Amino acid sequence: MEHCDTLILPRWIVPVAPAGTVLEAHAVAVSEGRITAVLPAAEARARFQPSVLVERPDHVLIPGLVNAHTHAAMTLLRGFADDLSLESWLRERIWPAESRWVSAEMVRDGTELAMAEMLRGGTTCFADQYFFPEIVAEAAADLSMRAVVATPVVDFPTVWARNAEEYLQKASDLVHDPYAGHPLVSTAFAPHSTFALSDASFAALRVLADQLDIRVQMHLHETAAEVQNSLRETGKRPFDRLADAGLINSSLLAVHCVHLNEDEIGRFAEAGVSIAHCPSSNLKLASGVAPVDKFRDAGLNVALGSDSAASNNVLDLFTEMRSAALLAKAASGDATAVTASEALHMATLGGARGLGLESTIGSIETGKLADLACIDFNRVNTQPVYDVISQIVYATHQDQVSDVWVGGKHQLDNGHFAHIVEDDLIARANEWRDRIVTSTHKSQVPG
Amino acid sequence: MEHCDTLILPRWIVPVAPAGTVLEAHAVAVSEGRITAVLPAAEARARFQPSVLVERPDHVLIPGLVNAHTHAAMTLLRGFADDLSLESWLRERIWPAESRWVSAEMVRDGTELAMAEMLRGGTTCFADQYFFPEIVAEAAADLSMRAVVATPVVDFPTVWARNAEEYLQKASDLVHDPYAGHPLVSTAFAPHSTFALSDASFAALRVLADQLDIRVQMHLHETAAEVQNSLRETGKRPFDRLADAGLINSSLLAVHCVHLNEDEIGRFAEAGVSIAHCPSSNLKLASGVAPVDKFRDAGLNVALGSDSAASNNVLDLFTEMRSAALLAKAASGDATAVTASEALHMATLGGARGLGLESTIGSIETGKLADLACIDFNRVNTQPVYDVISQIVYATHQDQVSDVWVGGKHQLDNGHFAHIVEDDLIARANEWRDRIVTSTHKSQVPG
Repeated sequence: MEHCDTLILPRWIVPVAPAGTVLEAHAVAVSEGRITAVLPAAEARARFQPSVLVERPDHVLIPGLVNAHTHAAMTLLRGFADDLSLESWLRERIWPAESRWVSAEMVRDGTELAMAEMLRGGTTCFADQYFFPEIVAEAAADLSMRAVVATPVVDFPTVWARNAEEYLQKASDLVHDPYAGHPLVSTAFAPHSTFALSDASFAALRVLADQLDIRVQMHLHETAAEVQNSLRETGKRPFDRLADAGLINSSLLAVHCVHLNEDEIGRFAEAGVSIAHCPSSNLKLASGVAPVDKFRDAGLNVALGSDSAASNNVLDLFTEMRSAALLAKAASGDATAVTASEALHMATLGGARGLGLESTIGSIETGKLADLACIDFNRVNTQPVYDVISQIVYATHQDQVSDVWVGGKHQLDNGHFAHIVEDDLIARANEWRDRIVTSTHKSQVPG
Repeated sequence: MEHCDTLILPRWIVPVAPAGTVLEAHAVAVSEGRITAVLPAAEARARFQPSVLVERPDHVLIPGLVNAHTHAAMTLLRGFADDLSLESWLRERIWPAESRWVSAEMVRDGTELAMAEMLRGGTTCFADQYFFPEIVAEAAADLSMRAVVATPVVDFPTVWARNAEEYLQKASDLVHDPYAGHPLVSTAFAPHSTFALSDASFAALRVLADQLDIRVQMHLHETAAEVQNSLRETGKRPFDRLADAGLINSSLLAVHCVHLNEDEIGRFAEAGVSIAHCPSSNLKLASGVAPVDKFRDAGLNVALGSDSAASNNVLDLFTEMRSAALLAKAASGDATAVTASEALHMATLGGARGLGLESTIGSIETGKLADLACIDFNRVNTQPVYDVISQIVYATHQDQVSDVWVGGKHQLDNGHFAHIVEDDLIARANEWRDRIVTSTHKSQVPG
């Protein structure tokens, strides 16, 4: 008998690659953090002597979900500013609260709360853009969650840095030790948007990104107003400013892209750009619905993001998968647009590719890292089962995630966290709430 | 001390009426199935000697949710026909399966599965349109769930009746014993749509509805094609055929209404018609997004429905509330359109009014029936809490419903069903699945 660390025996496996495949009565063997075999269950029982055997007879095993766009620490502002215009939301609520309260401690507490929520919902990897990215990186490493920590770059001073030069310096610092070659944490640059950076800052960022061979994530064409304002102020669409800066290439993850025209979609596809689609956030802030069916028709890679808890208000990729598939149907007038299988791809392999991690995560294949999530279908809302992938995307609630592994480490075991103490995280979240409520907008905050 | 059957002490109460109210440290007293007092917790402890004391220190108590449109038995076809055009969905999948499989037994098993799912998600009342409504009524009475059983009327033969006359006869029969004055079950007429009934059938239905003083529910203007086909075939929009039949009045619950024009919205408002908005179903079948903000501006009452599990694929009003609020924002380009409080109203008092039950359910008020749901906020995805109502609509997952009462009867107690045995329901659902899969469309059904 061959040893393996963990042998997982679910009822079904949806490996995502090849697309649409559903394996029944198969097993996944894991050793040293990697998937070492995907094989028929009977064969697995005969071949492997596992240290841990995990039998999940009513469950489906999927690749861990990838949340390609969030601002994790903002869980501490969940529900703080709802049903407001983007303008009021930002200027009257979010920015004042952030300028008063963002600190290393706040980022640590908010990010840990976010990671607990994401892990509970089967998300094993997240891409984050927020202040104090070194704290986000530390939190991810400490809690053993995979993260792409994108360091923010803007032209104006914040609590984290004074000007573009300092943001870029801090971003470069983070690329090196301690995260060079880290098993869980990698880094990226996150210029906020074309309205937050000058052409000179984009030029400096591009030189540095090329030198360090580092990927770039950026909000782009989120709202119609963003495009109009840019035209008025610079004579160019944000897309063209980015193109002029030489940043439209296969290292770019463009976030939102609700208002791309067909020419831009074509040029993105040609350049191998990925898009982080954030369906819930785009609805909530009334930005619109991104033309995901056109992205797909053009051959663009699409990832999924929750955006922050202040504009969603949950970090739940099951909700985003369902929304991505359903919205595409209504927006295109075609009920066959974006199938369940395509939505699942966006939340797994599409996300991995958008983050430059497609060779190591995003699908259940031998040799990949063992980032896995197991879903319990034995609930009234997921019975009976005709189509496993449809059930994952259209009928599963995130609390049905029973088990989560990150790099082979069993983080959520049959509904229970191995290491994370949720009550502590909730207690700290409430301390922040008390501080924030007593200091800002007292009269506007009920309860 | 005054006796009461149940005294509930949650952290918060959202009574829905008055709108936007959040009570903290209050209690609800229940006796003989009704709410007998809503009062400060300290006062309640001093005044009442309850048979059962229910303390829920991290929870919010809301009125039981009202699912104003479903076809409950179709849970047995959940995921059976996804990512298909409405035409293929209906003609190639749903109708053949229904004509082969619908029976009293199938309706009983499917409806029980649906009721378990709805109760788990805090829904205490549902309006159903399906064949064998007498079986739906029986199932609701047996499982102690509130139901408005709407009897289907079409011109063509099905397994349940041969022609409009027989449908109407069976509908009238059901209005009388055993459901006249039943504490849980009431009845309505459900002419399917203008394309399924002749003018003569509408005329006969109207006479009968007036005689029996019974409310009417009907699919209307669900798709653009429905309106176009009607214009081509009859020279009239479906709305106008209904108007000519004298059916546009305050007894009408018009379902879907994705494609109403402004004149029709105004005439509906004038007549006191209610609309059952089914946001998920309208997305999934690519029907579009109903102009809910315009309904509201016109003063129309709006209820929420899940539609069937074959076009959703869950019966979860938390998902529908969230979708109703978020979609209205994107569709109108206004992030303030349809607030959390308005979405909660749709799922409670709006639903009650749409079903003619607003004097007895839909809000937490003294004298109303004790249809209640309790939500546990002590989860990482609903912390911290700034705004209780926002948290209910934008951040709560349906599995956070801890307790449900229907007419004072404790159906779900701290996450556990008092009477329903879910494993039995799931086992029966799987028997149906096996039969359906082996007989129909074998090659198209995976796994």
